[in-house]
Amino acid sequence: MINRYRIGNPIETDAVITSLPISEGFLSDWSLDKDNASFSYILDDDDMVFGLGETVRGINKRGWLYISNCSDDPNHDEDKHSLYSSMNFFIVFSHKRSLGIYIDTPGKVTFDIGFTKADTMCISLEDFDADVYLITAPTCMETVREFRSITGRSYIPPKWAFGFGQSRWGYKNESDIRDVIAGYQRCDIPLDSVYLDIDYMEDYKDFTIDKNAFPDFEGLVCDAKKQGIHLVPIIDAGVKIEKGYEVYEEGVKNNYFCKKENGEDFVAAVWPGRVHFPDFLNPKVRDWFGQKYTFLTEKGIDGFWNDMNEPAIFYSEEHLNDVFKRIDDFKGKNLNIESYFEFTGMINNISNNPKDYASFYHEYKGARIRHDKVHNLYGFNMSRAASEAFASLPDKKRRLLFSRSSHIGMHRYAGIWTGDNKSWWSHLLLNLQQLPALNMCGFLYCGADTGGFGADCTEDLMLRWLGVSLFTPLFRNHSALGTRDQELYRFEHTDWFRGLIRLRYRLIPYLYSEFMKAALNDSMLFTPLAFEYPKDRRAVTTYDQLLVGQSVMIAPVYMQNSPGRYVYLPEEMMILRFKGDALTEKTVLSQGDHYIYTALDEITIFLRPGRCLPLCDSSRNTDSIDMSTLTYICNGCDKSSYELYDDDGISII
Amino acid sequence: MINRYRIGNPIETDAVITSLPISEGFLSDWSLDKDNASFSYILDDDDMVFGLGETVRGINKRGWLYISNCSDDPNHDEDKHSLYSSMNFFIVFSHKRSLGIYIDTPGKVTFDIGFTKADTMCISLEDFDADVYLITAPTCMETVREFRSITGRSYIPPKWAFGFGQSRWGYKNESDIRDVIAGYQRCDIPLDSVYLDIDYMEDYKDFTIDKNAFPDFEGLVCDAKKQGIHLVPIIDAGVKIEKGYEVYEEGVKNNYFCKKENGEDFVAAVWPGRVHFPDFLNPKVRDWFGQKYTFLTEKGIDGFWNDMNEPAIFYSEEHLNDVFKRIDDFKGKNLNIESYFEFTGMINNISNNPKDYASFYHEYKGARIRHDKVHNLYGFNMSRAASEAFASLPDKKRRLLFSRSSHIGMHRYAGIWTGDNKSWWSHLLLNLQQLPALNMCGFLYCGADTGGFGADCTEDLMLRWLGVSLFTPLFRNHSALGTRDQELYRFEHTDWFRGLIRLRYRLIPYLYSEFMKAALNDSMLFTPLAFEYPKDRRAVTTYDQLLVGQSVMIAPVYMQNSPGRYVYLPEEMMILRFKGDALTEKTVLSQGDHYIYTALDEITIFLRPGRCLPLCDSSRNTDSIDMSTLTYICNGCDKSSYELYDDDGISII
Repeated sequence: MINRYRIGNPIETDAVITSLPISEGFLSDWSLDKDNASFSYILDDDDMVFGLGETVRGINKRGWLYISNCSDDPNHDEDKHSLYSSMNFFIVFSHKRSLGIYIDTPGKVTFDIGFTKADTMCISLEDFDADVYLITAPTCMETVREFRSITGRSYIPPKWAFGFGQSRWGYKNESDIRDVIAGYQRCDIPLDSVYLDIDYMEDYKDFTIDKNAFPDFEGLVCDAKKQGIHLVPIIDAGVKIEKGYEVYEEGVKNNYFCKKENGEDFVAAVWPGRVHFPDFLNPKVRDWFGQKYTFLTEKGIDGFWNDMNEPAIFYSEEHLNDVFKRIDDFKGKNLNIESYFEFTGMINNISNNPKDYASFYHEYKGARIRHDKVHNLYGFNMSRAASEAFASLPDKKRRLLFSRSSHIGMHRYAGIWTGDNKSWWSHLLLNLQQLPALNMCGFLYCGADTGGFGADCTEDLMLRWLGVSLFTPLFRNHSALGTRDQELYRFEHTDWFRGLIRLRYRLIPYLYSEFMKAALNDSMLFTPLAFEYPKDRRAVTTYDQLLVGQSVMIAPVYMQNSPGRYVYLPEEMMILRFKGDALTEKTVLSQGDHYIYTALDEITIFLRPGRCLPLCDSSRNTDSIDMSTLTYICNGCDKSSYELYDDDGISII
Repeated sequence: MINRYRIGNPIETDAVITSLPISEGFLSDWSLDKDNASFSYILDDDDMVFGLGETVRGINKRGWLYISNCSDDPNHDEDKHSLYSSMNFFIVFSHKRSLGIYIDTPGKVTFDIGFTKADTMCISLEDFDADVYLITAPTCMETVREFRSITGRSYIPPKWAFGFGQSRWGYKNESDIRDVIAGYQRCDIPLDSVYLDIDYMEDYKDFTIDKNAFPDFEGLVCDAKKQGIHLVPIIDAGVKIEKGYEVYEEGVKNNYFCKKENGEDFVAAVWPGRVHFPDFLNPKVRDWFGQKYTFLTEKGIDGFWNDMNEPAIFYSEEHLNDVFKRIDDFKGKNLNIESYFEFTGMINNISNNPKDYASFYHEYKGARIRHDKVHNLYGFNMSRAASEAFASLPDKKRRLLFSRSSHIGMHRYAGIWTGDNKSWWSHLLLNLQQLPALNMCGFLYCGADTGGFGADCTEDLMLRWLGVSLFTPLFRNHSALGTRDQELYRFEHTDWFRGLIRLRYRLIPYLYSEFMKAALNDSMLFTPLAFEYPKDRRAVTTYDQLLVGQSVMIAPVYMQNSPGRYVYLPEEMMILRFKGDALTEKTVLSQGDHYIYTALDEITIFLRPGRCLPLCDSSRNTDSIDMSTLTYICNGCDKSSYELYDDDGISII
């Protein structure tokens, strides 16, 4: 059952697509504190909190403070409050009940989940205007389904987007891209896509191609496609200010850019230096910007990633000018603790400064609204622009689209990647722990930068990361300029990587089937054990294992130099041990605790009783998957107990 | 057996105190590459590497690159290469042998332990001058003992330094200090010391007291001592440049400060703004600076912590002037990706800039030596200055002394704390994992900032951190200005904290006894399981449990919201469960795997077979410990099998 309560006079977000009547009163058991624009709830000792999408920390969100405020921050440390996304849906789960809450508001929301007081959950809003949905259902999964039934079906990518993709900030020209493809081919490691980061553009201008670096872009796209490889370019939110640049000129002429208070176009700076931000909240602007993607679709491109759409702001013109003025005050002085840190703090606060976000405006739903009031809708509507434009294309094909920033509602239009993580073992665990929370909020097509974006990746970290990434719909190896090269063919044991990536392709029929069923049924691909075994105290507090689809559980090794790890089996399960893509062991293990050795070149999967895992032969890309090779590993049942979903992988469903 | 090999013409470090003859040749099985100033070794698949003291990552150091280069860096992320210390001793351990190596050199050393190539350990030196000691012994512990026999006995603090201490950057005056003491007394939580951070000084000048904030410092020290509480002030490396300030004037007059190439005193800046650095490498300067501590010992102070002695450099005068000149070039321009990051990078590289460390000089062993060549000896010799001065005091008492920066050799003079960690769960684990490596290098008196220095601490994190800190000789709660208050009486469940801190005091006879035996026998207090159970594959790869002394093993919970954790018992052990300071369970558990529940207000300890744990009654501070209340918990033996060490806790041993 869903109840909708209203606080104040909320701005519409387009997150919810089903109009429910507004109930009288407010959440029972919650204390409303209008003076502090907050409401709070006393948690029982054993209550757990799941959800909130892309945040730091574990599967159970208790004991920290999370702020929905889409932020470009590459340091996803434990003490961060905001990442790139804002997903205000969570479930309070106890043995007694499951209580789903969604806070529908486009502004900043703070979730103090036992941070200030261990037993108190307090939600506060910067502006006390929101629709609050209360969802009550007997189980967590039913709560999720009810919530998703009012927010709409999840984005469905083409099947090829389940293949493995290689990316790096720093592939600077055609030759680099061809080298990557050749590198994978030389090592016979399957590959479906190569990503183009900001380097492919001319001066970082959206919808341009650097002609010097890519003299025959169409030829490259076509050659790659002949080898079954899709090139996937990045699109940034900011539009370079440059006389004669078509996107800039059209945007200025038609008033498509966000405005300052005085009506002039707002000037921020990102990769190209000074830019304007398209006002994606305005449907006309979405139409216009969305159509721009045809510049690339006409060149054979069928996938995109939208970036910097929190939006990231390196600096605003006005703030930077102000800083330069203030710098003079520090010159030639004996800078002491206060003045020195004032000076360096001033510089470090230039980027993504809150004042800048309160200094420009949108045309939204017929009103002029200051950006910070609707901040969390920006990335959402950038991806909506692209998605709606794709839908209008005559070929009626699915296209790959995912975004860095997001908000609930965007899950209908695109997937996400979890942004600029690091080559840290702790981020491998974070990757696992974020997945079910993203799924709860509707983001089924998701994944992290495998091996880590920032910092240097070691071979063992990359191998262990596959223990998670082999199962994520988006499976991309991505890294930052200046870090150690981490294409799989750069490492010593290319045979190990070949085997494990081939295993991914053997799993695609299952992953695709489970993904599609989750999408079509408003369900989840990645589930915390608590959802499936709510009465098993050990299962509900197991935060480093996940159910993947209906059949299997994973328990990846995430501690460096460990030959294995403890695994809790909530019921008798069959361990499937793969050395590379070859099944080497299937043994039924008893319910309970096991220490499971898993070598660096192995993957262990746990098959639930009465369930099947379909596996095809491995292939060099998704196009080459031969479904006639499908076999089933069954644990105490036959293959008829598995409902396989399949389709042509490209037609719009 | 120890062999000493020589490379080049090393600068003496005073780390080794036993002069061994120099052997011909070099490490067998190692490849020497003079052109790259490096030597390397092929690791077997199951070789493990232990040691290197204070570094990031786990107990087994394989799979990362560590650089001995004492660094002031508060972000102890997994990808950092250097922390505050340089400890060039490690053991390569396999089932076949234990191979100890010590690189005796004062400059930068890089340990690539399977980072570049998974099976290769490569050690490279910035200057190819070092004495390399090869220590071969049948076991890891014997290897450690042999190494320690040539580097000298570890620092022994007074017994009161095993009590609990409260610290925070930001106790700004006498009233704040009295409030802290009163806070602990009100909640009846035992306490032995309160730390004074930089706030107690006048303008951050060493050996001064802010008279406004502390109008009767001696009175405060005396009042505290009457309550059994020691005040422990900080001393920083840099001496403020200020006309008329005695320490400054004397240092200038006698040429006690580090010099620039042109012979002028080098100017850097730290907390007070511009400072000079005492040339601690010069024995005359050590004598002079060490005697300055009497300014405080005469006021009743009997403990100190030496800080900022890497040395940290916020900026050098010359570099800052240069930056201000270069800033003008950026003004008014359209800063694009390159120029914007050049600008912000220039600012972010002002602090701790390598060029600054290569721009000043020491008088060392009769020669003028550029700082970067002997960089790692600076903190070492600052603490040596204090220690040698204390030894010359007539009262012949032990004093508490620990340091942030360190080098092997300093372990004879002082302990360390592990610097500016964060209130992160991952740093709770890091704390545990650093302890045995520090012990190997001789640093027995050590501990981390309990609850974390930077970032905000939650109650559950503080409670879980006690699972490690309750066993560390240095047991201090310390936090940074601007973070959430984390004195134990600030939290909700002060009764839980009271119980657990009282348990610490019940454990002090054991901890002190084991510490002293380790110090007197060149042994270790914290031991990896691999040292004790080298043939047990599971034990050697258990990286999140430690043996503490001869009798017990600990296995703290370090995952938030987990009600317990897996524990591996390499042999049958007796679980001792304490609820607060009360023993509530003693059950013998079989060898093997166990999931052990431990509530937030509990501590579980594992008692080895045939061993005893002495426990006294709890007390309000170390002075009040009544050894006549000592009882023994025995696992299959009687108390005579425990060798208890005790002494008056204050006389010099």
